[in-house]
Amino acid sequence: MKPPVITLLTDFGSADHYVGAMKGVMLSVCPGAQLVDISHEIAPFAITEAAYTLAQAWPCFPKGTVHLVVVDPGVGSARRPILAEAAGHRFIAPDNGVLTMLFAQVSNHKVREITAERFFHRPVSRTFHGRDIFAPVAAHVAAGVAPAKIGKRIDDYVRLDFASPTRVGPKEYRGAILKTDRFGNVITNFKLQDWELKGKSFEMRIGNSRISRTASNYAEMQAGELYLIEGSAGYLEISMNQASAAAALGARAGADLALLL
Amino acid sequence: MKPPVITLLTDFGSADHYVGAMKGVMLSVCPGAQLVDISHEIAPFAITEAAYTLAQAWPCFPKGTVHLVVVDPGVGSARRPILAEAAGHRFIAPDNGVLTMLFAQVSNHKVREITAERFFHRPVSRTFHGRDIFAPVAAHVAAGVAPAKIGKRIDDYVRLDFASPTRVGPKEYRGAILKTDRFGNVITNFKLQDWELKGKSFEMRIGNSRISRTASNYAEMQAGELYLIEGSAGYLEISMNQASAAAALGARAGADLALLL
Amino acid sequence: MKPPVITLLTDFGSADHYVGAMKGVMLSVCPGAQLVDISHEIAPFAITEAAYTLAQAWPCFPKGTVHLVVVDPGVGSARRPILAEAAGHRFIAPDNGVLTMLFAQVSNHKVREITAERFFHRPVSRTFHGRDIFAPVAAHVAAGVAPAKIGKRIDDYVRLDFASPTRVGPKEYRGAILKTDRFGNVITNFKLQDWELKGKSFEMRIGNSRISRTASNYAEMQAGELYLIEGSAGYLEISMNQASAAAALGARAGADLALLL
Repeated sequence: MKPPVITLLTDFGSADHYVGAMKGVMLSVCPGAQLVDISHEIAPFAITEAAYTLAQAWPCFPKGTVHLVVVDPGVGSARRPILAEAAGHRFIAPDNGVLTMLFAQVSNHKVREITAERFFHRPVSRTFHGRDIFAPVAAHVAAGVAPAKIGKRIDDYVRLDFASPTRVGPKEYRGAILKTDRFGNVITNFKLQDWELKGKSFEMRIGNSRISRTASNYAEMQAGELYLIEGSAGYLEISMNQASAAAALGARAGADLALLL
Repeated sequence: MKPPVITLLTDFGSADHYVGAMKGVMLSVCPGAQLVDISHEIAPFAITEAAYTLAQAWPCFPKGTVHLVVVDPGVGSARRPILAEAAGHRFIAPDNGVLTMLFAQVSNHKVREITAERFFHRPVSRTFHGRDIFAPVAAHVAAGVAPAKIGKRIDDYVRLDFASPTRVGPKEYRGAILKTDRFGNVITNFKLQDWELKGKSFEMRIGNSRISRTASNYAEMQAGELYLIEGSAGYLEISMNQASAAAALGARAGADLALLL
Repeated sequence: MKPPVITLLTDFGSADHYVGAMKGVMLSVCPGAQLVDISHEIAPFAITEAAYTLAQAWPCFPKGTVHLVVVDPGVGSARRPILAEAAGHRFIAPDNGVLTMLFAQVSNHKVREITAERFFHRPVSRTFHGRDIFAPVAAHVAAGVAPAKIGKRIDDYVRLDFASPTRVGPKEYRGAILKTDRFGNVITNFKLQDWELKGKSFEMRIGNSRISRTASNYAEMQAGELYLIEGSAGYLEISMNQASAAAALGARAGADLALLL
């Protein structure tokens, strides 16, 4: 019998007791559950970055996995906790748009508002719903509680407009930076399947910088030059070989860029 | 059969091999043990911060859990390794006061000096007792070795004076900052159960700053203003909505504050 | 039945989805595997630091453990993925020298080129072989696939020259810094078994600094002074009590030092 898997994605960092407390609650509810950290280093309250990180990680996990996402600037306010079911996976999160990219990946999904307080950790504090609501509900679901017992289905859950590139001229598109990673790769919102630039003439503009070359891998790149590559995340990325494209560009998640064909 | 749970709390950071080495030793002694990181980012040698973090995390875990705490500025000196039993949990730590808050939480606790060298990892190095003493003893205890076999009971273990607020005038109290967290919340040593300030007139002073408002949650707060909130840790905390109160105050763990009623 | 253990050592950091994605792939292939992080904070592309960290950690794990090492500046180029067997452990890594210290530790080792594409995660991306090649192969091996099914043995795998100290004068040796750790300890490549300096007259030189004292443990050291100690890693280390020797020396991994007897 394989143990149930619960992943964790938060902006709690790893210095404080918050993640450990959530794990303790989950192991109390569902002993033997396999707890896997996706990341606790999402920038505080960065819903878009969390949505992107979740979208990259969850498809690698086996069906039946429960994914716990706690990036929750609205804790203590009226925002609802939700449970989503998609592609055989379950997702527990605040209803603030952090599941937006999941909903786009899996159009056939169901969402429920989490209302069954008997599965909460008592007393429920005002500021730590990760420990008191999200973690215990995730563990109960991992332990076999049917989603229908967690709450009723809803259709008015929050979906944010994470910009896909928009056409702003005959041969000009405006896009955005989804994330910059540890290696300084700059991940754009131009999906590989929609944009084939290799061998074509193009110019990508970020601030005062211009990129007009593609590379197939890091080894192909000349040192100190910027390239577009087909990133493993399914998007065009801007990269430098063994250096940080993000630092060279002064790029940050959320910033604009332009593509001219 | 649920696997035994061992938590880890250290100041080792996560960049070096230290934590991995301890985990390898534990899995060699107790295969299948479930290893859960509380934090490895305690500031080096910060006994108070570790004591606070442990006190927040351990009650969330199931009974039977073994908690390994290695924040040990005295490694290699004569300080003793100890095993504590409290509330059905076991704690392995150096005898330097890092269990002080646990002892305050659970008055009915037992402490033993760890002396049974047959449970150590050999040879015992002079500088890495985490790997050579604390980790293997924790794993043996998790695997079922009775505490009585680890060493004799002692009563002269170290308890530090983590200041509770003291009255310094007719309506004035002096307290301290226990910790500042990733979100910039400033956790004071004023316990919620002892201090009810909502609706009352008060002034909390840190350096040149003054706080005289309370809020029930982050959503209630005006941007840029400091509030006292009832923190999930059971203490009054100073917070700002989506900004760092610690940065605004220049506050650090250990610093003084005053409360005037 | 104890679950198979897989350790992870990368330069991916813990902020992005990379490590989580690899873990998801491994749990899909080998449900119930026990995944243990050694470190994900190796400096990007720092093969020497990864080799040293692995050499310190793997011997603490039980036989049968699979160690996954992904520090891979050549991803997407022609460098081969390899599987090594040594001392009852298995190692999955790129063939770039990152196993050099393991090969020195265990002279009786076998190395195979990983070629069995049926164990890969499809499609194989150009930039994320950790998820698509290394992780799934590690999980298949942990699940019981015989190394011989992974690929043929090779003898021309990469071994780097991690400098041992060299004699450069009648009583002078030149060495190097292997690593500086979180506590600011500076780990040299002078092995304890070869160098006994206690009670002898010596001078170690790093830049303009001179060290000529030894200590047995941190408690023996005067504040603000530099000492040579016998490190738990098996090498001479330069340390200060409750302060960073690395900061005091301006020392970094790879830098030269001299020992005069």
